Amino acid sequence: MFQLFRADEEGVPSDDRGLAYGDGLFETLRVSGDHAPLLNPHLDRLVRDAGRLGIPVPRGDLEKTCLQIMAREAGQYDGRPWVLKLILTRGGSGRGYQPEPGASPHLLVRHGPAPDAPPEGGVDIDFSPVPLTVNPVLAGIKSLNRLEQVMAAKAMPEGIFEVLMSNAEGQVVEGTRTNLFLATDDGWQTPPASTLAVCGVMRRHVLACLHNAGEPVVEAPVTLDQLGPDRCRGLYLTNSVLGVVPVRTLAGQALPVTRRLATIAFSSQVME
Amino acid sequence: MFQLFRADEEGVPSDDRGLAYGDGLFETLRVSGDHAPLLNPHLDRLVRDAGRLGIPVPRGDLEKTCLQIMAREAGQYDGRPWVLKLILTRGGSGRGYQPEPGASPHLLVRHGPAPDAPPEGGVDIDFSPVPLTVNPVLAGIKSLNRLEQVMAAKAMPEGIFEVLMSNAEGQVVEGTRTNLFLATDDGWQTPPASTLAVCGVMRRHVLACLHNAGEPVVEAPVTLDQLGPDRCRGLYLTNSVLGVVPVRTLAGQALPVTRRLATIAFSSQVME
Repeated sequence: MFQLFRADEEGVPSDDRGLAYGDGLFETLRVSGDHAPLLNPHLDRLVRDAGRLGIPVPRGDLEKTCLQIMAREAGQYDGRPWVLKLILTRGGSGRGYQPEPGASPHLLVRHGPAPDAPPEGGVDIDFSPVPLTVNPVLAGIKSLNRLEQVMAAKAMPEGIFEVLMSNAEGQVVEGTRTNLFLATDDGWQTPPASTLAVCGVMRRHVLACLHNAGEPVVEAPVTLDQLGPDRCRGLYLTNSVLGVVPVRTLAGQALPVTRRLATIAFSSQVME
Repeated sequence: MFQLFRADEEGVPSDDRGLAYGDGLFETLRVSGDHAPLLNPHLDRLVRDAGRLGIPVPRGDLEKTCLQIMAREAGQYDGRPWVLKLILTRGGSGRGYQPEPGASPHLLVRHGPAPDAPPEGGVDIDFSPVPLTVNPVLAGIKSLNRLEQVMAAKAMPEGIFEVLMSNAEGQVVEGTRTNLFLATDDGWQTPPASTLAVCGVMRRHVLACLHNAGEPVVEAPVTLDQLGPDRCRGLYLTNSVLGVVPVRTLAGQALPVTRRLATIAFSSQVME
């Protein structure tokens, strides 16, 4: 089990390993009323990745806690979409990286209104000067080690919605808070899970919808020259709070914008 | 200025960005009575690296806080060495990686007894299967993003004091909580600062002492074959709480042990 903390009622113990070392992970769920359409894949990912970190957490208790909080808090959002954030840490401990055996995980729950929807016509994005590093042991895990993303977001120019981060091999991997889907002459392409810092729940959902719809899709590294206006047939950012966001310009260059990927992703049976 | 939290009196606000993203850094100081011999270099590093992260913190206020806490807590350790830990975060904020302008940093202060001194005859260490990744933007910063070190420490076999982590180029870079000094036929060698996850205060102190003593020393990547018993004339771990720790065996192979580096580091004028 875990020790539950509600952000609107209390603080976090000062010996929490999430604070000390980023020793934990988090989920951010979009909620409508008392219902999170992607609750199951979020909980699946949290439990699976917590397992990779060696943080034991029973899925049933997590789910029960989420359902209780959604039922309790839905009223205050009065029909507007809201966001439920779960921070799961390894718990408290004394000094030192080595976890103490038998520590009880901490679950911190926060919530707040959903951000405004991005403009329908697409967003303006750029490249980040901050490189992305991905440790294979932690690849894809939405861990609390997000300082690279903070530094990239901090350097983001005014009016720019997102910046794309590249790895040491020069592959364009992901945004600070989004995964990428590229429309090519051959179909759809998204960087492989093994190269990602965060393997998003919405990315997985969109992939499943594309497969379901019989669309050709590959998971393969995206190179810089694939993103030029001569080769790129469209670029989309995915994120479980914002959904599928089309890119209108990348580094000042216009890209074609359609609603096609959003339509595939949100008309599909896979959603639930 | 910063908002001060004392770990023995209170928790941390649940919106702290150190917890949410590892958006902060820390220092661990060895204290004797009410005096930390390396207080100045610790504060220098904290202020410098906070500046790299864009976290403004006045050195004078930090120093005053440390001196007050050391004076107040010294009595309870009754002459035994103790450890003062400072966690500095960017402060609180709403959801999202992008920092809110004007947020006031949080300073969390913890303390506890110093760990036992390692055996004089040296320690047994091994190699970690967890690779080390270092983002050039964050190189050397003792940030709160320490999940790689946690995973390496977690996998450390019983009886092993430390494990050495290597980067993707196969260079042996550092331990989970220590930097490395290697004795070679030509003098001393330590991996360059630009390759380090954490550029330790004790490493800097030892380097200064070696220079002061006129010893030949180079900052150059350490390769695996340099650590074999035929080429290695001694391997030392440094850490500001433990000092200079000689390695007795590395992955089961005996290495020569002397007190030479510790003698150079602690008889020098550079100490203060």
